[in-house]
Amino acid sequence: MFLNMNLFADACSSFEEAEFVLYGVPFDATSSYRKGSKWAPLEMRKASYNFETYNGDLDVDLADVPIHDMGDCDVCCAVDDTLNEVYDVASSIVKAKKIPIMMGGEHSLTYPCVKAYKEKIGFVVMDAHYDLREEYEGVRNSHACVSRHIIDDITDKYVSIGIRSGPKEEYEYVKKNKKIRSYTANDVDGMGIDRILNETETYLKDCDRIYLSLDMDAIDPAYAPGLGTPEPFGMTPRQVRSVIRRLAPKTVGFDVVEISPEYDQGITAQLGAKLIRDFIAAKWKSMQKI
Amino acid sequence: MFLNMNLFADACSSFEEAEFVLYGVPFDATSSYRKGSKWAPLEMRKASYNFETYNGDLDVDLADVPIHDMGDCDVCCAVDDTLNEVYDVASSIVKAKKIPIMMGGEHSLTYPCVKAYKEKIGFVVMDAHYDLREEYEGVRNSHACVSRHIIDDITDKYVSIGIRSGPKEEYEYVKKNKKIRSYTANDVDGMGIDRILNETETYLKDCDRIYLSLDMDAIDPAYAPGLGTPEPFGMTPRQVRSVIRRLAPKTVGFDVVEISPEYDQGITAQLGAKLIRDFIAAKWKSMQKI
Amino acid sequence: MFLNMNLFADACSSFEEAEFVLYGVPFDATSSYRKGSKWAPLEMRKASYNFETYNGDLDVDLADVPIHDMGDCDVCCAVDDTLNEVYDVASSIVKAKKIPIMMGGEHSLTYPCVKAYKEKIGFVVMDAHYDLREEYEGVRNSHACVSRHIIDDITDKYVSIGIRSGPKEEYEYVKKNKKIRSYTANDVDGMGIDRILNETETYLKDCDRIYLSLDMDAIDPAYAPGLGTPEPFGMTPRQVRSVIRRLAPKTVGFDVVEISPEYDQGITAQLGAKLIRDFIAAKWKSMQKI
Amino acid sequence: MFLNMNLFADACSSFEEAEFVLYGVPFDATSSYRKGSKWAPLEMRKASYNFETYNGDLDVDLADVPIHDMGDCDVCCAVDDTLNEVYDVASSIVKAKKIPIMMGGEHSLTYPCVKAYKEKIGFVVMDAHYDLREEYEGVRNSHACVSRHIIDDITDKYVSIGIRSGPKEEYEYVKKNKKIRSYTANDVDGMGIDRILNETETYLKDCDRIYLSLDMDAIDPAYAPGLGTPEPFGMTPRQVRSVIRRLAPKTVGFDVVEISPEYDQGITAQLGAKLIRDFIAAKWKSMQKI
Amino acid sequence: MFLNMNLFADACSSFEEAEFVLYGVPFDATSSYRKGSKWAPLEMRKASYNFETYNGDLDVDLADVPIHDMGDCDVCCAVDDTLNEVYDVASSIVKAKKIPIMMGGEHSLTYPCVKAYKEKIGFVVMDAHYDLREEYEGVRNSHACVSRHIIDDITDKYVSIGIRSGPKEEYEYVKKNKKIRSYTANDVDGMGIDRILNETETYLKDCDRIYLSLDMDAIDPAYAPGLGTPEPFGMTPRQVRSVIRRLAPKTVGFDVVEISPEYDQGITAQLGAKLIRDFIAAKWKSMQKI
Amino acid sequence: MFLNMNLFADACSSFEEAEFVLYGVPFDATSSYRKGSKWAPLEMRKASYNFETYNGDLDVDLADVPIHDMGDCDVCCAVDDTLNEVYDVASSIVKAKKIPIMMGGEHSLTYPCVKAYKEKIGFVVMDAHYDLREEYEGVRNSHACVSRHIIDDITDKYVSIGIRSGPKEEYEYVKKNKKIRSYTANDVDGMGIDRILNETETYLKDCDRIYLSLDMDAIDPAYAPGLGTPEPFGMTPRQVRSVIRRLAPKTVGFDVVEISPEYDQGITAQLGAKLIRDFIAAKWKSMQKI
Ligand SMILES: [Mn+2]
Ligand SMILES: [Mn+2]
Ligand SMILES: [Mn+2]
Ligand SMILES: [Mn+2]
Ligand SMILES: [Mn+2]
Ligand SMILES: [Mn+2]
Ligand SMILES: [Mn+2]
Ligand SMILES: [Mn+2]
Ligand SMILES: [Mn+2]
Ligand SMILES: [Mn+2]
Ligand SMILES: [Mn+2]
Ligand SMILES: [Mn+2]
Repeated sequence: MFLNMNLFADACSSFEEAEFVLYGVPFDATSSYRKGSKWAPLEMRKASYNFETYNGDLDVDLADVPIHDMGDCDVCCAVDDTLNEVYDVASSIVKAKKIPIMMGGEHSLTYPCVKAYKEKIGFVVMDAHYDLREEYEGVRNSHACVSRHIIDDITDKYVSIGIRSGPKEEYEYVKKNKKIRSYTANDVDGMGIDRILNETETYLKDCDRIYLSLDMDAIDPAYAPGLGTPEPFGMTPRQVRSVIRRLAPKTVGFDVVEISPEYDQGITAQLGAKLIRDFIAAKWKSMQKI
Repeated sequence: MFLNMNLFADACSSFEEAEFVLYGVPFDATSSYRKGSKWAPLEMRKASYNFETYNGDLDVDLADVPIHDMGDCDVCCAVDDTLNEVYDVASSIVKAKKIPIMMGGEHSLTYPCVKAYKEKIGFVVMDAHYDLREEYEGVRNSHACVSRHIIDDITDKYVSIGIRSGPKEEYEYVKKNKKIRSYTANDVDGMGIDRILNETETYLKDCDRIYLSLDMDAIDPAYAPGLGTPEPFGMTPRQVRSVIRRLAPKTVGFDVVEISPEYDQGITAQLGAKLIRDFIAAKWKSMQKI
Repeated sequence: MFLNMNLFADACSSFEEAEFVLYGVPFDATSSYRKGSKWAPLEMRKASYNFETYNGDLDVDLADVPIHDMGDCDVCCAVDDTLNEVYDVASSIVKAKKIPIMMGGEHSLTYPCVKAYKEKIGFVVMDAHYDLREEYEGVRNSHACVSRHIIDDITDKYVSIGIRSGPKEEYEYVKKNKKIRSYTANDVDGMGIDRILNETETYLKDCDRIYLSLDMDAIDPAYAPGLGTPEPFGMTPRQVRSVIRRLAPKTVGFDVVEISPEYDQGITAQLGAKLIRDFIAAKWKSMQKI
Repeated sequence: MFLNMNLFADACSSFEEAEFVLYGVPFDATSSYRKGSKWAPLEMRKASYNFETYNGDLDVDLADVPIHDMGDCDVCCAVDDTLNEVYDVASSIVKAKKIPIMMGGEHSLTYPCVKAYKEKIGFVVMDAHYDLREEYEGVRNSHACVSRHIIDDITDKYVSIGIRSGPKEEYEYVKKNKKIRSYTANDVDGMGIDRILNETETYLKDCDRIYLSLDMDAIDPAYAPGLGTPEPFGMTPRQVRSVIRRLAPKTVGFDVVEISPEYDQGITAQLGAKLIRDFIAAKWKSMQKI
Repeated sequence: MFLNMNLFADACSSFEEAEFVLYGVPFDATSSYRKGSKWAPLEMRKASYNFETYNGDLDVDLADVPIHDMGDCDVCCAVDDTLNEVYDVASSIVKAKKIPIMMGGEHSLTYPCVKAYKEKIGFVVMDAHYDLREEYEGVRNSHACVSRHIIDDITDKYVSIGIRSGPKEEYEYVKKNKKIRSYTANDVDGMGIDRILNETETYLKDCDRIYLSLDMDAIDPAYAPGLGTPEPFGMTPRQVRSVIRRLAPKTVGFDVVEISPEYDQGITAQLGAKLIRDFIAAKWKSMQKI
Repeated sequence: MFLNMNLFADACSSFEEAEFVLYGVPFDATSSYRKGSKWAPLEMRKASYNFETYNGDLDVDLADVPIHDMGDCDVCCAVDDTLNEVYDVASSIVKAKKIPIMMGGEHSLTYPCVKAYKEKIGFVVMDAHYDLREEYEGVRNSHACVSRHIIDDITDKYVSIGIRSGPKEEYEYVKKNKKIRSYTANDVDGMGIDRILNETETYLKDCDRIYLSLDMDAIDPAYAPGLGTPEPFGMTPRQVRSVIRRLAPKTVGFDVVEISPEYDQGITAQLGAKLIRDFIAAKWKSMQKI
């Protein structure tokens, strides 16, 4: 008889039964320009009730998919302690052979989520920003450094899509670093997302498993105004959805980060919740075929 | 010397003189997720003063068109009573051989507007949602059921455009029901709106008269964030305008519904008001040619 | 390790252990002017994390008090069905000899909360409005009728405080009905809240148990702007707190209703959450003394 | 059957039948700090539907009072042209021996409202600002000069209440000008509003008729945040209501100006509408006694 | 050690050293529908800190470009006095052979900026509105007349892009006036921005110098909701950026006007600041090649 | 001719000439519940232009007072580095025998401001919270610990006013620590602010110099809703003004902290700016008498 509107809609399974395990991390302490991504897990859960359980494009009903929402991860004031907490949670989900879906919070939280996989993993990130600094304002685990540390510490099978911001050093780092791939927002506009996804699949063909991270500022501020560091000239939601649907079969972990819900009246959290639901449906569909 | 900013701009004619009769219905009681469409008639009227009287695309000056604004229809707490009120108003306008334009309020209000026509009529609706349930949460006349009751009770010449949400039953209902036509938002994106309109015109060629309903959530939330049930991946305003301009010659009744103006700072009501103005100009132009 | 920010802060006990049982009812369908009280349970829970666990005035630490949060009651579109749900929940808490605290939603929800007590109970309500109509816009169980039905059906030991709005019939009903007591906001201003509470205690001296209902519009809109039907010239939060602290010893059920959190940026939900916390502390303190 | 929510609630009489004639003036061109009072007539009308028709304090039902709402006065870009328009409207109402109630718009609009009376009239204004400059930023008819021009051109029976802002010259002007009376917000706090009203009545005892103007920034920003030039340490709504009720018997014209409704979510316009309703009730009651 | 966040980011040069000189003009007195562009300089400066100094598309680092921010121009209540002030400021920058960048404020401010050039200059404006009236509501220097006065008084080498609003007279004026060029938003959509820019370059081939003015309402309200007179069916930010980058080499003065930052939560001011930064980078790059 | 609206109004003197030196510190990294005090210096400067230069209560014209605004202090991501920066700035002002006025930013910034004085100093703080923890969430220099570190490291002549929140340990710390004084918001309500100020002056009679810190959450959220950690039942602005005026003669440093301007539409920053202006006027007046 009781319904807690603040668990993600259709997350009605226990941890044990679930294939997908959602959790939030209300942490935004290293954010630089505008803060507030700590409120995003709450707002994405609330927004999830706006949508039908059925996904007509993919013919998947989320009411039939075993999903669990663990609630919010305990956060600390210090970023390193919080990353350790997230690492423990992510690891426990990965160990249980379930698919973790992290709702940030800021982008630095992605690092422990990727770290939680023991075997080789490809990493695909949609972002307006390179996030390739070694440290930012003296903080190593800043949200502005997450891609760099993932490349340095975890995997060199790295693809970024939607990039349109960074200092000159980051642009040069990408040019020099031949192992990784990066597509700017101009590339998305010029080449089309399908050709980029073809190239991405070829590049990642040796990876059995992909981690997919969505920094919502990859999307144009018209569609996603509720952001900490909005950047004009971005991707459309359809392009982002194409990436999610195409990569879902290999994807074993997903996150949506950097939504600051206080800077709009709901549409960014709604889009984030919708893209999570679309990822679950696409992944579930691919799992059924096997 | 006196101007009431709260009648629709350029609605300076008496009921008797008018060819177009506007009225509002500030009713949102069956809305499920976010409410507030009761404020939309007031905000669309206010927004209408932002625009020039002249429509340069169509070379029509609304200052020259006989338009009347009746004000707001008296609403009741119970949806059925309100629908009866709307039916009486719509009928009186239809009987007077004028073109009613209803400013909602929620989508359930469209039913009595269509019912008011005595002869056979085609029905075209732009919407993100099928609205094909027989009842929703125990309420038959819910905004989530309006298309179904129109098909069942009034006309089987039915076209929906922009659809991207519904339970599985609604998708199956559409597949099985060969008499009606439905185009998803993906169809709009893939086929182009012009091809869809060609098909629609062919399908409706036996209808002399069309009723056209615009649930504003057909439009992408980037352009129309002020909605009760926003749904990403929607139509563009240009696509919606194409539908309106193409179908205007046959259209004998029009409505704009489901704007919740408290969820943005004006752009959705402005777009709604603009589309009403564009409909009037396009219809008036077609009337002059005859 | 996991914390769900969306259960009320410090509600860490199981139902069985708890002395206080919180639940939300996200229902606002009969609201007349501005809607949105359906979001109040979510926002009061969020706001509850702004406060310390310790209440220095009363020397009670909520971390030491056994509190349970059941989540949100399942709501229906129809008011009568929702009231039945609330009745079942409230009854189950009362039967378990715990103190229910209902977070509305609209004021009509108070009726089943009071009905849930089997023995005679006094009823004290703070409200700007009499809510003494027999029906409103054709709806019997409207939020505008709740006090009337409680008097008619449940108890004639009735006190209202803070009243400053109603049709003439309600003012006359109160004058004629000698059994009940009513204090206007002018009375609060003129007599002082302490004298009113003295009179109230005398009037209720035969009641062992009181139900206390707080319609937040009792409070002045300066302190509580996030309301469905704001009414100027209201009570101060200190006056409301005095009522709560004075009556807590006898109070066996409490609710906070009619907050519409979309009409401010947090202060009304924060005040509502704070007053719930103050009620719990005051009641718990009185329970320790026995 | 039709109701235009955008005429003031209960303004159901024709001009001829009415004793009270409301009109709006959506003009804010000389406002200096924050603009937007042009939207106040619309928002006060909307807010007026939040309130009961019956005033329990005064035992007057506005449904029984003959009130007319003329709509909005035509405004021009140039302040002088707009003041001429207002003068014509106000004069026509005064000539018809009805009581004009002007909903601004900015404070400069009060000048033609007072000018419309042919015989000697007392002028009482509640305001945070002296408005005693001869001109402001080169504009004679600025909202910052309205009191000065009324004293210079129309009447030296002048009382201001709630003052707490002005350049030194204005403070000295008041000290030197022994004919007029001025009470600061500190006076209101220290002397009490009743003593000030006693003095005011004595001072105005030779005036048969008073014009009463309410610049809403007289009120503290906690109660009235939606203002162009908010000034802390202001009057309470109860104090303002005392002035209105006490002076209503002699008052033959009233206005509420300087609300900027875009700077809050409704409470200032609601308070403005409520105070208009209270003035009408108090005045009507005094008229019935004669 | 001190940083004033309210000077435009990277504007670290003195006036003498600078090649680019920014200044704001917080003036919006002739705005007709919604006001508030007076706050745009402040908000664009604030927004400028959201962006990296490096422009990866153009390989220009703004930290290396000599930019000066003069602060805000002193504004008067009367439009003519303000235009004189702007003329003096713009002239002093032009005389010093630097590139002025004016941050409005309303569009009327562009007139003195163009007037400041002594030799023949081409004028390109992006706008939703023709702004070709001779006067508007009795005011000659209204924001609705700026293009007309520039054509009449300063230069007949005139191109407008993005137009979709105007009275019939303005459409006819453009048709008759063969010397000027105008491209509607429909043209942009139909011809593509590149073909329009080809034609524009040909048309302006005899002009050595161009002044470029960006009325932000040229852009669709989805991307730029914070506007005084939003007009649906507008240009995309990418199209605007194409115009800026293509014309930058010849451009010797630039402005961004008509942002009303109170009508959104930052994205319009952010886009305005970004486009200013893009203009500086594109112009600087072209200057380096010479 | 140029005016930068973003320096505090009337801060027209050079550092050398000035007696009062304002600076902002846009830092909020340790804030726990709601962030955003980093924007407060910008918004208080903007708000300062709403007010007259003349203070009629005190007969001081700020245009005649030598005030300098240094702009914003450079902030770092790490709190300790930022406190060092603030210490350097504050020390340089103190050394120059001027009165520093710091606009926060969060309350932790007060510590280096007080530390900057070399001789014994009394410390008076208005706050809802004790801020007496030794560390908060692992951070020593948290805004929740500022009072404790000032007592432990700098001065035991300590008075807090307006307190109504803290863990039990803080309440006990105050009870045990007989050297310091603390007045709760209940004390302010019960004793009156004047009696508290009498006691405070007696307690501080041996201190020649006082540092005065205003955490804006001392004030009730009705008057100051734009806060990081709003706490109901607070002080009125008049009570705060009484403290400022009474203590100004001995006060040699002042700050206003913890305003989060994104949580209201201006009134908290306006009140903060007004109180700074009132402090300057009161202090200047006391300096003239000597
Ligand atoms: Mn990122
Ligand atoms: Mn990013
Ligand atoms: Mn619909
Ligand atoms: Mn829909
Ligand atoms: Mn009630
Ligand atoms: Mn009520
Ligand atoms: Mn005034
Ligand atoms: Mn004023
Ligand atoms: Mn323009
Ligand atoms: Mn324009
Ligand atoms: Mn503090
Ligand atoms: Mn505090």
